[in-house]
Amino acid sequence: MSAIDEAAREFRRLPGIGPRTAIRLVYHLLRSPPGQARQLAGSIIEMIERVRSCDVCGNFAESAICTICADSRRDRAVVCVVESPFDVRSIDRTGRFPGLFHVLGGVLSPLDGIGPDELRIALLIERVRTSNGELREVILATNSSVEGEATAVYLEQTIRPLGPRVTRLARGLPVGSDLAYVNGSTLAEALSGRREM
Amino acid sequence: MSAIDEAAREFRRLPGIGPRTAIRLVYHLLRSPPGQARQLAGSIIEMIERVRSCDVCGNFAESAICTICADSRRDRAVVCVVESPFDVRSIDRTGRFPGLFHVLGGVLSPLDGIGPDELRIALLIERVRTSNGELREVILATNSSVEGEATAVYLEQTIRPLGPRVTRLARGLPVGSDLAYVNGSTLAEALSGRREM
Repeated sequence: MSAIDEAAREFRRLPGIGPRTAIRLVYHLLRSPPGQARQLAGSIIEMIERVRSCDVCGNFAESAICTICADSRRDRAVVCVVESPFDVRSIDRTGRFPGLFHVLGGVLSPLDGIGPDELRIALLIERVRTSNGELREVILATNSSVEGEATAVYLEQTIRPLGPRVTRLARGLPVGSDLAYVNGSTLAEALSGRREM
Repeated sequence: MSAIDEAAREFRRLPGIGPRTAIRLVYHLLRSPPGQARQLAGSIIEMIERVRSCDVCGNFAESAICTICADSRRDRAVVCVVESPFDVRSIDRTGRFPGLFHVLGGVLSPLDGIGPDELRIALLIERVRTSNGELREVILATNSSVEGEATAVYLEQTIRPLGPRVTRLARGLPVGSDLAYVNGSTLAEALSGRREM
């Protein structure tokens, strides 16, 4: 296989990159100054060598503790539980959540052999237990999929007895959405969760 | 800047990759086995180290002569002139062109300071001259942009006096197109270039 096809094959393994896009990217790199391709390759190596899991929350980190856990201005009374580091980023970038995170590393999925021991659930329970009541609210922000909901129900039953409030992200109409295009279950959730204006 | 943001910035320099896609790619690599990221980085380095320009046609090659120029089954009587190596690939993959290629490396664009000397035009003229009449047709396959057309006109005037037929790719309706969505100039070209059925 030629070096060009080899590189295109590696690009094609990335999500959302089909054969045509892969070739376009590869040809772009070949036409650019060689420094650009070297910088891309170097930054990928540098990243996988430097990035690890935060010992506390499981988010991506470049030292033992991630920047969020290490930030003394964050509110340690609220922990938001998410499936992946990408969700941490999405929620953090809203600028509306002052608390900490806990990354599960997936969702319960018995058919795929993923039970509580395969996720970072024991570490979450330990965080709640060792907080001595400082941790007052656990927000369950798993996805709204069947597995995400089942995981939230399991966590709610496990954590509530330990003391903290357990909440779930609101379901309802996406901002800017048109009623005509919203599916029935979302509309039903929006109705049952309606709020006083 | 964090190693993650650094890698995302490098991905963002690729065509068609915006900030959100860049972050998605980077997080995907971090979640995958480290071997995958290393292979991607390695294949990029390998590629830019191995790929060079074909001495004859200017296509990407992994030795002095590209695989197309080195293929003795190709018809040496016809040369298709294109702007970039990517165009070579597109035309070659149709499987309908048995001849050779010549890559200009761009198009004439006086405003950007790109004249005949900045393109591989002298090499094309030399190819025609040294073929001793073996080269019977030069197909001009520059893009249908203003610069592409101007370049084709310039090449036609330069090459025709040397002997070979000079042709241009047909303009007309794209296959599978709907007349209602085709622009007026394309329709006009399709009319003036109509053929007996």
